Amino acid sequence: MLVKSQVKYIQSLSQKKVRDEEGLFVAEGPKIINDLLDAGNLFLHQLFATEAWLQVNGPTVGLIDSRQVIQVNDKEMERLSFLKTPHEVLAVFRKPVFKGPLKFEGRWTLLLDTIQDPGNLGTIIRSADWFGVDQVVCSVESADWLNPKVVQATMGSIARVRVEYQDLASILESNKDVPVYAAVLEGTPLDKMKSGKEGILIIGNESKGIHPSLLNSSINKVTIPRKGGAESLNAAVATGIFLSHLT
Amino acid sequence: MLVKSQVKYIQSLSQKKVRDEEGLFVAEGPKIINDLLDAGNLFLHQLFATEAWLQVNGPTVGLIDSRQVIQVNDKEMERLSFLKTPHEVLAVFRKPVFKGPLKFEGRWTLLLDTIQDPGNLGTIIRSADWFGVDQVVCSVESADWLNPKVVQATMGSIARVRVEYQDLASILESNKDVPVYAAVLEGTPLDKMKSGKEGILIIGNESKGIHPSLLNSSINKVTIPRKGGAESLNAAVATGIFLSHLT
Repeated sequence: MLVKSQVKYIQSLSQKKVRDEEGLFVAEGPKIINDLLDAGNLFLHQLFATEAWLQVNGPTVGLIDSRQVIQVNDKEMERLSFLKTPHEVLAVFRKPVFKGPLKFEGRWTLLLDTIQDPGNLGTIIRSADWFGVDQVVCSVESADWLNPKVVQATMGSIARVRVEYQDLASILESNKDVPVYAAVLEGTPLDKMKSGKEGILIIGNESKGIHPSLLNSSINKVTIPRKGGAESLNAAVATGIFLSHLT
Repeated sequence: MLVKSQVKYIQSLSQKKVRDEEGLFVAEGPKIINDLLDAGNLFLHQLFATEAWLQVNGPTVGLIDSRQVIQVNDKEMERLSFLKTPHEVLAVFRKPVFKGPLKFEGRWTLLLDTIQDPGNLGTIIRSADWFGVDQVVCSVESADWLNPKVVQATMGSIARVRVEYQDLASILESNKDVPVYAAVLEGTPLDKMKSGKEGILIIGNESKGIHPSLLNSSINKVTIPRKGGAESLNAAVATGIFLSHLT
């Protein structure tokens, strides 16, 4: 049985302020929840599921303290869910905590300058994970990585990629020995660049691109050559192409 | 002034059946609508806009038969729009008609085997346009390219890319001279493949991949090498990476 205060509480987690205060986030659907449970570095806070899901997934759920598991019916799930077509399971996890300072040498880092669309941010985190890039630094104006839409689009990669919100200019300032690549519309063609073992890749805002103040002269400005009529590529697609080529 | 029947009519265009019968589709937002108006091969059927938008865009709108232009207020736009946050302009266009049979030699074609997410389909059409691929053939089970969410994600590329719905096996059967590449999880690494001037690239469904019946022995099965923990890449990101490398 679901009580009204529980629905209200879950719904309140759509707000960044509440997520930050509570240190929690929501994930929906069997695939992503199984991934997050398997990841080993995330703590489950609460799990809401239909009887059908709980029956099939009994062995898994058996591992979880039963007070954390709440059985709901389809109507109740509709009230909880952030999705138009709710899944049979919704879970609340504790926000992952990554310790120690970020390191930039000998590895790849993504710098996201104000990616605003949650779907794009989630898809970028998923692509980073595919290409073995395990740290992403967003400008403070970017979408929040624990927004339910971002979490859905990451497809579980949120457990493996460290995402931080920091001033990007300071990061560039203090890492002058690491090669920096900026995704721009007019730069060196990407196929002229060699791949490497370390680097910082900057991706800009969906409509405004990278803020000019970040583009100092020591940065490699790189472009995906355009052969047709589209004015631009989707930010997540462009990031995938850059990562595929450079890493 | 907006009448109830107009709202009902626009809303009915969210259904594929109605779009097919009427031969119309909906686009929203100043950027995409300006792109579609500029494209030159699309006929505007109706345009709904706020006073503010009409004032600024007067010169453009002046080109359009005024009976096609209906001024609405913000409340009315909310009732018309398919978006959570409506723009100041919404337009209904006639479905683009491409004549003549598809040709596969000397060019690139994308074959989409049941791409179901409208955002993915739209982003794929936009990427195809960027890389100069001007024809996309979808299996009949794929999302409809004139679904409002697809149109939004194409960002205007819908005017430049021919999208058809056909049996993919028949296309492969009748084009045995064109090299075929299939995006799979275990195949030849993409960086081992050379780019070329012609080809057919097959992209599979978001969760099931390409139907095995399409994967005959003469097809090049190609993979984007995985370096990290993610199980898969988003279908639109993967398509972008393939197109970037092969075309």
